[in-house]
Formats: sequence, structure tokens, C-alpha cells
Amino acid sequence: MKTTETSKTKPGSPANRSPQTRSQPPKVTPLPNSTVQSSPRLDPRGARTYQAWIAKAPKQPMVLESVDLGPLGAEDVEVAVEYCGLCHSDLSVLNNDWGLSEYPAILGHEVIGRVTAMGPNAKGLKVGQRVGVGWNSGSDMSCPQCLAGNHHLCPQVQATIIGHRGGFATHIRAHWAWTIPLPENLNLADAGPLLCGGITVFAPLAMYAKPTDRVGIIGIGGLGHMAVKFAAAYGCDVTAFTSNERKFDEARGFGANHVVSSRDSAAIKKLGAKFDLLISTVNATLDWDAMIGTLAPNGRLHVVGIVPEPIPVAAFSLIGKQRSVSGSPSGSPAATRTMLDFAARHNIAPQTEHYPMGKINEAFARLESGQARYRIVLDADF
Amino acid sequence: MKTTETSKTKPGSPANRSPQTRSQPPKVTPLPNSTVQSSPRLDPRGARTYQAWIAKAPKQPMVLESVDLGPLGAEDVEVAVEYCGLCHSDLSVLNNDWGLSEYPAILGHEVIGRVTAMGPNAKGLKVGQRVGVGWNSGSDMSCPQCLAGNHHLCPQVQATIIGHRGGFATHIRAHWAWTIPLPENLNLADAGPLLCGGITVFAPLAMYAKPTDRVGIIGIGGLGHMAVKFAAAYGCDVTAFTSNERKFDEARGFGANHVVSSRDSAAIKKLGAKFDLLISTVNATLDWDAMIGTLAPNGRLHVVGIVPEPIPVAAFSLIGKQRSVSGSPSGSPAATRTMLDFAARHNIAPQTEHYPMGKINEAFARLESGQARYRIVLDADF
Repeated sequence: MKTTETSKTKPGSPANRSPQTRSQPPKVTPLPNSTVQSSPRLDPRGARTYQAWIAKAPKQPMVLESVDLGPLGAEDVEVAVEYCGLCHSDLSVLNNDWGLSEYPAILGHEVIGRVTAMGPNAKGLKVGQRVGVGWNSGSDMSCPQCLAGNHHLCPQVQATIIGHRGGFATHIRAHWAWTIPLPENLNLADAGPLLCGGITVFAPLAMYAKPTDRVGIIGIGGLGHMAVKFAAAYGCDVTAFTSNERKFDEARGFGANHVVSSRDSAAIKKLGAKFDLLISTVNATLDWDAMIGTLAPNGRLHVVGIVPEPIPVAAFSLIGKQRSVSGSPSGSPAATRTMLDFAARHNIAPQTEHYPMGKINEAFARLESGQARYRIVLDADF
Repeated sequence: MKTTETSKTKPGSPANRSPQTRSQPPKVTPLPNSTVQSSPRLDPRGARTYQAWIAKAPKQPMVLESVDLGPLGAEDVEVAVEYCGLCHSDLSVLNNDWGLSEYPAILGHEVIGRVTAMGPNAKGLKVGQRVGVGWNSGSDMSCPQCLAGNHHLCPQVQATIIGHRGGFATHIRAHWAWTIPLPENLNLADAGPLLCGGITVFAPLAMYAKPTDRVGIIGIGGLGHMAVKFAAAYGCDVTAFTSNERKFDEARGFGANHVVSSRDSAAIKKLGAKFDLLISTVNATLDWDAMIGTLAPNGRLHVVGIVPEPIPVAAFSLIGKQRSVSGSPSGSPAATRTMLDFAARHNIAPQTEHYPMGKINEAFARLESGQARYRIVLDADF
């Protein structure tokens, strides 16, 4: 077992020292000393103690308790949590909306922190290094998907907050491959949401989009507003679709060239068959037929929001213009590194509201109200 | 205007003289002299006369009549029909199943014949050359899709049998780009169905499949049996799905490694998430959720059969394994040439039943009965 002592932050890799010019220097938030948890406290018996916000049952307030994390896995990394974003899927798991939750649960899967310990077989990181942990915390590393770099498609992929302890805690543990080094110049206080929401919307752009494409982002919320920023930085012509007219101007502020009401079927149909890629971040039923009708030849509707009801897809509308409907879950560790590098180079961060982690239940209520603009981050305050 | 006199068949281009070895020489059916229509007959006034089987109203028998084709378009090619396949979409247009039919209609869009005349601006062909015409007969040639080689996605693409005179006739006309030169060694009598059904199932293989893939073909009929042959020649592991147990052995004969009932949801689910590509040729509703569940990570369900009811696609089943559902219409002229070259090299032809064109109404009844094994071809007998 390697030391748990704090060491200096490792500088970013050469790939992160991009020569690209930037019109403005990135905003880097210095980390308040009080929130740095370089190692767990020792209790009087010399054992480590950890604290975490525990969800004991569906739809109940979380409570702060001590937790015994047990021995660190040989390939695992322990991270002292500094910030953790609050994602809508934390709320879905808290409420057991998907029927997959396991209680007691420790939620939170958009972690920014520092490595405090490494298992003997953990690779590629150093104690003290700034890292992030997202939707997944592990995979079997040996299946064809992991070996091909698609760890997020591993049949054994370990979700951070289902059957695993998440980031609303003093510490989180994750497999080294899923503990993502952060590039220099990243805005740490606001970077957490990039680790889940950010990679979720960046991955389809990286897989399918070209800068010459016309891209539509459906739903301007936690995911969608990051998607607009990424698509604009990608060089695309960006149309934002939102049901909330009060968000029209903000969507333009994020980089949208055009804004259309996602509830106005007539306005959607009027767009014609123009989009090369639509990324849907909503979890509500829309006029899908009209949306698919806006896809250009070879266009793709890519779904990352979990719509509860099946999307009805007419064969005719796929066949005639050679269209696709697809989906994806977060992204691989390699794609996440690429996304963070791109975010740092282009100064892309979510628009956030910060709460001290002690007010976690208020933060969940705020998220549930639909009023958050646009992503909530909890600052560790143990 | 160039001459309409018969000239010798132009040999295949060098690309078609493949050096690949073949275990058996291809079966080349010599064309009976009686069916060669090298040029239209002249009536007593010296005007050309053409004959065609005319559909005057939905669901009525076709009748043979003389037709005035008018002057040949400057970029068009006239082809004396030797063989014309009968495709299920001919029946759909005859019956106006899609609400798009225009009467009087001349059906038939799987033509094999000889060039008899070329407009002054027609390119790349010679009078007397053997050619094929498929689902489309023209496109605007100047839109971004045409310029990119995706003529089949042109917004002005001209279907051969909707608002255009098809191939159940002495002659057909088509734009030169859509008049496809045939490679040497193609089995002419049975090649017609390749021009529509063949390219329709070959195009998704060419776009998405690798020889290392596991491919499923859903529906073993006119399209599906060609799809099995193409996928097997592509080097894929091929599973045939059919609702008809009497077709199990035949599907294996076409090259399927495995056969599964398309109506047995339990058997389908038991397959696990194994397919890289499923090509659905059916126009019936299936257990789509079970079918999508058999897709491996990054797998794709590609639809070429026009299912009347929308396919319900659950967001969860797309997202978790990064799957796609897509469709495509026939294929481009370039893809069609590639397909024909591949078919000639691998000796791929549909299994056919031949009727003289004079028995066209019997042939349509046979198709409608679902008994045809597996594709009907009408031999010109004017």
C-alpha cells in the first residue's frame, strides 16, 4: 500500500498543455483549504473514519453518518472529495425511479478531489493528484469492450451510486482506470458536472459530429446547456430546443445560433430536414415524429435522456433519408480525458449553483423543483 | 441523338475482371434471341411504338397496350427490357398501399436489358451495352447529396414506378447515372432482383458490416434470402430469423450459420446481446424489444422493410449498450456497381421463379400468395 500523505499536484500531461490561443484566460477557482481532505481522520483506535451522506430508503432525506470503507482494493484509488456535482440521476436513484437502487445508498457521481491513497496495483496516478470520478467507478478491464477502450460498455461496469459508495462523502473510491486525471487550467469548483453530464453530451459529438454539421440540442437543462457549449466550441451550427421560453436568451448565451420551442410542432416541422445530429437530453415525451423529420439525409437522433415511454420510430422516416436513432451512456475513460482537455482549452464549464454539502437535502429539493440554473455543485464541508 | 442500332455488348470494366478465384464458374444464362428488343418497332407512319403492361387503377389486372414514350430526354438512356424482377413494392404500388401511386402506372423496377438509344448528353454507356435499372431512375445530379455520391438521398430522386414508366414493358428509360453497367459473368436471367432487393440489403452491409461481425437477417423472403447470401459472402457469422419453419433448411442453404424463429421471443432473448448488425426485411410487427435486446454493444438494428406501425424504441435499451436503429432506401449508383461486382465475383444470385411477361397478372397473384421462392422474374416476350 502506498502512502496516503498529501503530495503536490502532478502537472497536466503534455497533451493538456495545448498551444491553442484563448481569448480569455480560464477562470481557475483556488480550492479553499478548509475543504481539502488529504487523508481520512484517525479515530482513537487508529482506524480510519469516513463520513458520508446516507440515503436509507427511497425519497427520504439523507443523513450524515460515519462509514467503514474497509480495506482499499488492490487496483483502487481513494479520493478525498472536494466538490461533487448533483445530477438528475442522483435524484432518480434516491427515488428508485428505475427500480435499480440499492439502500443504504451514498449518491454523488460528479466528483472532483485529490488522490489520498492507491492500492498496490493501481496505475497511472499519484497521491495528491487532482482527479475526477463520474458515473462509473469500475469495469472488469479484461472483456472485449474494456480491451477495446470502451470500458463504459463493459457488461460488468460498476455504476458509482448503485451498489457502490458515491461522492457525497469525505472520500470516494474507484478503480484507477476510472479515476480521471484533470488537465491544468480546469475550473475545479465547476468541473464536477463535466464528469457525468459533460461526457454524456460530449461523447455523441466526438463520435458523430463534424464542425460543418448542423446540430440540435433538445432540452436546455443540466446536460443540454453543456451540450450547447460543447457543440458551439466544436464549430457546429447549433439550434437549442427548449420548452421554456425564459431560457431562449440564456441558450443563445451558451452559444446557440438558433432557439426553437420543443413544444411547437409547427415550428419544428418548418425547420425542414436540416440537422445532421440531434442530441436529446430530455426525459419527457416529445413530438418525436416531428423531431425525426428535421433530420437531414444520414442524420441521427441521439438520445442521452431517459425518456420513460418508448420512442415510436416510423420505418418510412428512417428509410427514406437513411436516418438513425441511437443512444449512449456517459463515455469511456479515454473519451472523458479528451473531453476534459477540450473543456480546459475552450474554457467550457457548466453554469452552476453551489451549496455546502451540509445542505444536501436542500440542494436535492432545489434540483427537484426544476429551478436550478443549470447544474448544482456541492462543496465538501466536513 | 446517337444511333439506336444494336452493337456488341461492351465488356465489363477492368474492376469487374476480378482476379479472385472461384470454386465454380458462374452460371451465365444466354439470352434467347426472341426476347431481344434492340430497338422499338416502327409503325406504318414511321413513329416508334412501345408496349407496356398498364395498371389503370388500384388492385386491377394489368393490360398490355401501346405507349407513346415521347422524345428521349437529353440525359436519358433507353433500354430494351430483357428481364424484369417482380418486387413486393410493385405490389404495394399496384394496390396503392402507401398512398403514393399514380395511375396509369407501368410497374417493374428490376430491369436487365440492353441500351437501345442515348440522349445527346448521356454519359458513360454505349448502345448495345447490357445494363440494369432499379428502384430509382433519376435524380437532379446537382444537389449536395448527388454531388457527394448519395444520389439515392437526392430530394428530387425519381422512383422508377411512381410518376415514371417502369420495366414491365418493351423499353424503359432512365437517367444515364441510374442506368447501371453490368459486370461480366453476371447471371443475367436472375440478376434483375439485385437491382432493387439486392442493393437494398447490400447497402447496409457495405456501410456497417465487417467480416468479423455477427449479423442477423430478419425475414427470409425476397430480400432476406439475398441478404443471407451477401452476409455469408461478406465473411460474417449469419443468423437467419424467419417465422416459417419450413424455410429453416433453405436459409442454411443460402449460407446462414444459425436459424431462429422470429416469432419465438424466448428463443430470441436466449441469444443474448450478440449481434453487431441486424437487417430487418419484414413488413410485419415483431417483438422489437426482444430483437433490440440481441444487439451487442454498439450494435445496430437496420430496417429496410416498411413496417406499417412505428417501432417502439426504449431509450434505456439504446443508451446502455450504445445501440442504433436505422434505415436506408436502396442505394447509390456507385454502391450498386460495387454490389454487382461483388455478386459476380461471389456468384450471388437470387433464387428465382420465371414467368413470361405475358403472364404478369398470374405472377403478381403468386407473389401475393406468399408462396414464391424466393423472387419472381418476368422474361420479356413481346
